[in-house]
Amino acid sequence: MKMDSVFDCAASAMVLPQPYLLFLGDTTERAFAKTAFGLRDWAADKCVGEFALKGASVTTGLQPLTPGEAAARGAQALVIGVANSGGVIPDHWRAALFEALEAGLDVVSGMHARLTDIPGLADRAQALGRQLIDVRSPPPNIPVGTGRKRTGQRLLTVGTDCALGKKYTAIAIARAFTELGVNADFRATGQTGIMIAGGGMPMDAIVSDFEAGAAELLSPDAAPDHWDVIEGQGSLFHPAYAAVSLGLLHGSQPDIVVVCHEPGRTDVLGAPGYTLPSIEETIEATLLLGRRTNPAIRCAGVSLNTSNLGEAEAAALIAGESARLGLPVADPVRGGEAFDRLVKNCLKAED
Amino acid sequence: MKMDSVFDCAASAMVLPQPYLLFLGDTTERAFAKTAFGLRDWAADKCVGEFALKGASVTTGLQPLTPGEAAARGAQALVIGVANSGGVIPDHWRAALFEALEAGLDVVSGMHARLTDIPGLADRAQALGRQLIDVRSPPPNIPVGTGRKRTGQRLLTVGTDCALGKKYTAIAIARAFTELGVNADFRATGQTGIMIAGGGMPMDAIVSDFEAGAAELLSPDAAPDHWDVIEGQGSLFHPAYAAVSLGLLHGSQPDIVVVCHEPGRTDVLGAPGYTLPSIEETIEATLLLGRRTNPAIRCAGVSLNTSNLGEAEAAALIAGESARLGLPVADPVRGGEAFDRLVKNCLKAED
Repeated sequence: MKMDSVFDCAASAMVLPQPYLLFLGDTTERAFAKTAFGLRDWAADKCVGEFALKGASVTTGLQPLTPGEAAARGAQALVIGVANSGGVIPDHWRAALFEALEAGLDVVSGMHARLTDIPGLADRAQALGRQLIDVRSPPPNIPVGTGRKRTGQRLLTVGTDCALGKKYTAIAIARAFTELGVNADFRATGQTGIMIAGGGMPMDAIVSDFEAGAAELLSPDAAPDHWDVIEGQGSLFHPAYAAVSLGLLHGSQPDIVVVCHEPGRTDVLGAPGYTLPSIEETIEATLLLGRRTNPAIRCAGVSLNTSNLGEAEAAALIAGESARLGLPVADPVRGGEAFDRLVKNCLKAED
Repeated sequence: MKMDSVFDCAASAMVLPQPYLLFLGDTTERAFAKTAFGLRDWAADKCVGEFALKGASVTTGLQPLTPGEAAARGAQALVIGVANSGGVIPDHWRAALFEALEAGLDVVSGMHARLTDIPGLADRAQALGRQLIDVRSPPPNIPVGTGRKRTGQRLLTVGTDCALGKKYTAIAIARAFTELGVNADFRATGQTGIMIAGGGMPMDAIVSDFEAGAAELLSPDAAPDHWDVIEGQGSLFHPAYAAVSLGLLHGSQPDIVVVCHEPGRTDVLGAPGYTLPSIEETIEATLLLGRRTNPAIRCAGVSLNTSNLGEAEAAALIAGESARLGLPVADPVRGGEAFDRLVKNCLKAED
C-alpha cells in the first residue's frame, strides 16, 4: 500500500480527504468518543454524518448514515472517531472499515494500532484505489531545519503543561482572526488537531533530528499579511516532552506566542514530583529560546482554561491575572471582551 | 531478520558485538575512513585488524586480515569503517559483507543506506544466525521519559555548536576519571561514539516524543559513586537540532556539564545567518533548562578544540579564557595541567 499518496509529491505536511463520516463503533462511553465530539464541535462543516454499530449508545447528534449513504452525500473518508483504552481496533469493527472502502471512502485513524495491521485491509484498499491514513504516521521526506526566516506571520500557542488547551486556543484565535477579515490558517500538530484541520504535522511522531524541519514544513512561506496559527505541543518544562516543544518553537519561528494554562493545576501531568512552572517563567523561557529563530518574538497574552470554574469566578480570575501580568488574559471558550482584547493584542503591530 | 537480538530483552540501549574487523572497502580518500580512524584512535583494544579491497590506498596501520582470519582471532563483527559521499554501500563491496557472514562475523554499519536493503544479505544472515546491525536504527520499546531522579552521577558534554569535540571531550574525561580510579562509563549518543563504546543510543534517530526517555535509558540507575560521561549532541542554539539537545539534557539529568567550543568558529554549522552563541550564553541556557531535571546541575569547565592553533597560541588562549570565565578551560586532546584541573573540578563535590 503506497502511503505517499496522502501527501503532496514533494516534502510537505499531511493533507486528509474531506468531508468525513464519523465512525463511532459500538461505543457506550462518551469519553471514548472524544475525537468525534472534537470534530463535531470544531469541524462541523467537514462532517456529513455519523456511523455507529449495533450496541452503540453514544451519538454526536449528526445524521446517522451508512458508508454508502455518506459517499453519496460527498463524504471522502470514514474517520475513526473513538478510542478505547489501549487504542486498539476491535475485531468486530473491521467489517465496517471494509464496508467504507467498498463504498468508495478512504479510512482515517488516529489510534495507536495501525490500519495496515488489520488483515486484508491494505490489500483491499489498494485493489479499490482507496487510502488508509494513520494520522500518527509522519509524512515522508521531512528535511532537516534550516532556520531560514520565512515570509508571513506566525502565532504559536505554548503551555505551562500538556493537555490544557493549546489546541482549542489556536483554533479559537484562528477563527477570530478570520472573522476580523485577517487571512489566517490553523496549523495542527497533534492527531485530533490534524483531523479537525484536515491536515498538519504529527510533531510528536517525528524523528528528533527533523523536528524543527517538520515545523518549518508545516508553516511555509506565505503572504506578508497571512497568519499561521500553530497548535503547540507539550511544554518546555515537561521532563518527557520538551524536545517536541523546542523543535516546534524553533521551526515555527513565531512572531507571537500565547501562553496556555489551567488554573489550579500545580503538578506536571505524568511526572510526579514536578511542579508546574509559573506563567511568568513560561513566558521568559519561551521568549529566550524563541528569539533564536525570531528575534522579534513577543507574548501577546495568556489563555486560561477555566472549565472547572463558575462564570463569576472565572471572570474574576481572568481580570485579576490580567492586572497581575500586565497582559490580556482570556478563556477562548468563554470568549467575550477579554478574548477580543487578547486577539487584538496579537494583531497589534509591535511598538 | 529479527533486529531485536542486538538489544537486551527489555527496553535498553544498543549493545554491539566486539571486537571488530575494520572494513575499508576500496577507499582511496583518507577523509572517507573517519570511522575507521576514530575506532583505531579511541577503541584500539576493540579492533583486531583491517580488511581492504583491491584498489584501496587508505590504511589504519592495523594488521590486514581476511574475515576468516579475523574470526579466528576472536573478532565478532565486521564494521564498515568508511563512508562515501551519499552514504551508500557500493555494489562491489557486497561480496565482502557476505564473506564476513560466512566467516561467522556480524556486520555493523553506521551508513545511511540500510544493510537490510542489500539483496539477499538479511536472508543469508538469518540462515547463518548472524546479525546485521544498523547503528542509526534505534532500539525498540523506548519508553516516554519520567523525569525520575536516578542514582549515580552524570556528566554531559554540551556545545556552542555541532561537530566541535563533544564526543572526544566525553571520551577523554571518562578515561581520565578511570585513570584516577573513579568508576566511570562513556555513554555514546552518535554513530561513531556508539561504535567506539560498543553500545549507546542514536539520539538523533529517536522519535521526539521518546527523546528524553531514550536518554534516561542510556544512563540507568548506578552506584552512588559511579559516573556516566555522556556524549552531547547538537546545540540548544542550533535552529535544526536543539530538540535533540534538550531531550538529551533533560533525560541525562546531568550533575555536571562541560561546554565544548571551537575558537574561531563564528557561525552555526549549516545554518547561514546564525551567529554562534558565546560560551557564557551557552552555560546560562544549559543550566537554566537543565535545572528542570537536576536542580544541582553545574558547569565544571570548558573544553576548547584548538586543533587549528599552534601549541603556544593554544596555551595562551586556554589560560586567557580560563581567567576570563573563572572556570577551568582545557583542550582534552592536548591534555596537560589545564585538563587535569578541569577533570578535578568535575569530581569536586559541590560547595
